[in-house]
Amino acid sequence: MTDAERLLAIEEIKQVKARYYRCMDVKDWAGFAAVFAPDISVNYGPVLEDASELKAAGAAEVVALVRGVVEPAVSIHHGHMPEIEIVTPTSARAIFAMEDLIFWPEGSLHKTMHGWGHYHETYEKIAGKWLIKTLKLTRLRVVYT
Amino acid sequence: MTDAERLLAIEEIKQVKARYYRCMDVKDWAGFAAVFAPDISVNYGPVLEDASELKAAGAAEVVALVRGVVEPAVSIHHGHMPEIEIVTPTSARAIFAMEDLIFWPEGSLHKTMHGWGHYHETYEKIAGKWLIKTLKLTRLRVVYT
Amino acid sequence: MTDAERLLAIEEIKQVKARYYRCMDVKDWAGFAAVFAPDISVNYGPVLEDASELKAAGAAEVVALVRGVVEPAVSIHHGHMPEIEIVTPTSARAIFAMEDLIFWPEGSLHKTMHGWGHYHETYEKIAGKWLIKTLKLTRLRVVYT
Repeated sequence: MTDAERLLAIEEIKQVKARYYRCMDVKDWAGFAAVFAPDISVNYGPVLEDASELKAAGAAEVVALVRGVVEPAVSIHHGHMPEIEIVTPTSARAIFAMEDLIFWPEGSLHKTMHGWGHYHETYEKIAGKWLIKTLKLTRLRVVYT
Repeated sequence: MTDAERLLAIEEIKQVKARYYRCMDVKDWAGFAAVFAPDISVNYGPVLEDASELKAAGAAEVVALVRGVVEPAVSIHHGHMPEIEIVTPTSARAIFAMEDLIFWPEGSLHKTMHGWGHYHETYEKIAGKWLIKTLKLTRLRVVYT
Repeated sequence: MTDAERLLAIEEIKQVKARYYRCMDVKDWAGFAAVFAPDISVNYGPVLEDASELKAAGAAEVVALVRGVVEPAVSIHHGHMPEIEIVTPTSARAIFAMEDLIFWPEGSLHKTMHGWGHYHETYEKIAGKWLIKTLKLTRLRVVYT
């Protein structure tokens, strides 16, 4: 790959991840589904002070999982400072720093969840489009109110 | 446009938006004015729990509007995860996720405003420089203390 | 330099700064040390409501300074909206907006520190790698609890 091809791949991956965050927060579930490879697998780690990990595999299952968690809430998810490495013309690795803030609806166990961590991901280029293939979230801290 | 030309335009637009945020927060009003096309129009949406929209058109009016709101305050405005599309060699569309935090001076109606949303913008390249031409802010949430 | 060479340098500098933030927060001190030029000098400005500036020079001293402050704490450091200018093929200037949030251990003077500001930096390319050469942090606001 030339430098320009590599830089274009990096920019395209940044924009895929941007749609991941934005579509989740504006509840655009068709747009959200479109960022994943068909065989996507995700591991959001332990949640809600529960030791069990939030995991799913397959694009439909991943969308259903995330939708179930954030649809009733006001959610804000931001990504920062990507470290993207193009491994081959159709595969890449990425780390994004992240912050998320969730305002749960009235009557929920918690009022808000505020967290920080890093996404560790792989991407695959399928039919000309970069898509998220694997995603693992590690946490620095989560605060509930 | 070549890939390199397109990527350069995207990087230049990111840096224009970076100056928009930084100049607003360090109160560099000459630097802030320099990011706008002469016929800029902005719509910051409803503010301060008031239904009326905060709008302005023309670079001088936009600077005066923003300056009037943030100059007396300590303001923090951050942008995240741009989705920039170069439409022609001199026009572009962009979405930036955003967070803003304002510490109002003593005696104000509120102590702080903390908000999250997205900027939906268009850019125009005039005399070799990318400039913000239209700006619309949509909000996910605003919290006052 | 061609546009592609300049854009590659900008992307490499973004990734150096990404490792600066991530390695500090995951306490990877070998990775953190690897982002600095041997003659690095840093000025983190006044801290902890004390007028004295937090300064160091030389990679080992800078790592020791930062490690001493953040190792006992949970720390979150995020960078935003870089303005990077490649001055020569081996030197560059950069500004990054920043937010930091520190959760101090039990029994500390403060429970948390939450701050916002800008990094003003220079970079040098040594033996094919961009490295941070000087770093000065200016603050918009710091809040302690």
